Amino acid sequence: MRSTERDVVRFEDGTPSVLHDQVVVEEPLELRIGETPIAVVMRTPGDDADLALGFALSEGILIDPSELEAVVEVGENRLRLDTTRRIDVDRFRRNLYTSSSCGVCGKGSIDAVRITVPEFPDRPAVEGTVLVKLPGRMRERQATFARTGGLHAAALFTMDGVFQVVREDIGRHNAVDKVIGAAARDAWPLTSLVLMVSGRISFEIVQKAAMAGIPCVAGVSAASSLAIELGSEVGMTVVGFLRDGTFNLYTGRVG
Amino acid sequence: MRSTERDVVRFEDGTPSVLHDQVVVEEPLELRIGETPIAVVMRTPGDDADLALGFALSEGILIDPSELEAVVEVGENRLRLDTTRRIDVDRFRRNLYTSSSCGVCGKGSIDAVRITVPEFPDRPAVEGTVLVKLPGRMRERQATFARTGGLHAAALFTMDGVFQVVREDIGRHNAVDKVIGAAARDAWPLTSLVLMVSGRISFEIVQKAAMAGIPCVAGVSAASSLAIELGSEVGMTVVGFLRDGTFNLYTGRVG
Repeated sequence: MRSTERDVVRFEDGTPSVLHDQVVVEEPLELRIGETPIAVVMRTPGDDADLALGFALSEGILIDPSELEAVVEVGENRLRLDTTRRIDVDRFRRNLYTSSSCGVCGKGSIDAVRITVPEFPDRPAVEGTVLVKLPGRMRERQATFARTGGLHAAALFTMDGVFQVVREDIGRHNAVDKVIGAAARDAWPLTSLVLMVSGRISFEIVQKAAMAGIPCVAGVSAASSLAIELGSEVGMTVVGFLRDGTFNLYTGRVG
Repeated sequence: MRSTERDVVRFEDGTPSVLHDQVVVEEPLELRIGETPIAVVMRTPGDDADLALGFALSEGILIDPSELEAVVEVGENRLRLDTTRRIDVDRFRRNLYTSSSCGVCGKGSIDAVRITVPEFPDRPAVEGTVLVKLPGRMRERQATFARTGGLHAAALFTMDGVFQVVREDIGRHNAVDKVIGAAARDAWPLTSLVLMVSGRISFEIVQKAAMAGIPCVAGVSAASSLAIELGSEVGMTVVGFLRDGTFNLYTGRVG
């Protein structure tokens, strides 16, 4: 359930009227490896298995989607990841603590990405004429955002601009994890896909994309200094303010 | 340094031109209690002492600003909080892990807030005519956002709408922590201030405001289901889509 109906009092020119409105659902999701909780993420319910797989891959818990044997619901808002190899949960818990999925990040996390990210020497370049079409194509596929205005979106496209998958979530990083998880089932790493996000491009968005091998990240809004720096270091193309037929190229190249 | 200059290639109608643009700075800040790192936050540098104090209060590490003796810079992007009482760092690290500042949250965190938040039975109501003036007053005081479009803002006002403080940050929660920290130096708890945020109102924004005793949270965009639920439980007024003279009242009351 992505949104819920709720009575809201709307004030217009000082006059209140009761409105039956859509509100985005936000609920905690606990992810476990075996019996050990490794993360609790505030997310919009839906595509939870995608979120679990994408989170595990983009945080470096799993190296390859084939390492995930099953995602098992072990309670309300609680998923257990069964893996083909033993995961050092303690190491990961510490790692999550210092380089968490959202806003809390280890001081050594840039170095950690450098070590963890496999190198992709021949990153393809996307055409500028393709890039400018992505925001519209993403919007067409969004459902909840239009109704509630309370969700971030992330989408993946081929280098030719063919739509692959879109996901919406109250958390920016969750939306990215969800599309990564969804696409990872078909092919891994995602070395020939463009990631488009509805908002700002922060360091952690670029970090997640880098872990997935994504060669180009584009956003409707600005990119941060550290996002650009990391993108530049790993040879990624980072594009911001992609809207109304224009965009800013922060690092990398467009064809 | 909140923003940095950078050469950016701007593509307009397929034509590239080099632009000397402002980019929002994002850097990790490590917070320590004694020698133990308790959190590393990706933040926009500036007002770091406010961020440290606000974070400590809104995460329940400190109960009162008077418990903070000093904030000492112990390295680049590294602050040590000296406190008047011994803090059980292990308990807090575990707590941070499960109910972190940003997007990662403990499954029991609603209960945790219920326990931790002091009760404020007589929360004042703000007038609707005051609320509609807040977005403009916040925008007037914002500096970096206008230049780069890459920052979230948070501001505090009196119940009469008198501007108190504004802070900008690449992280939504950091902006809130910064204004809480700044205001906490003058008075605590913040039981007669309205919190205004530039974006969405998520659970954790309401949680932080609740920890600070703030009676009303208003946002330019939507509020989540769990944010409304928590606001309702603690008797807070939650207002969304506050723009162009109108707003939605999700829970609580306006005068």
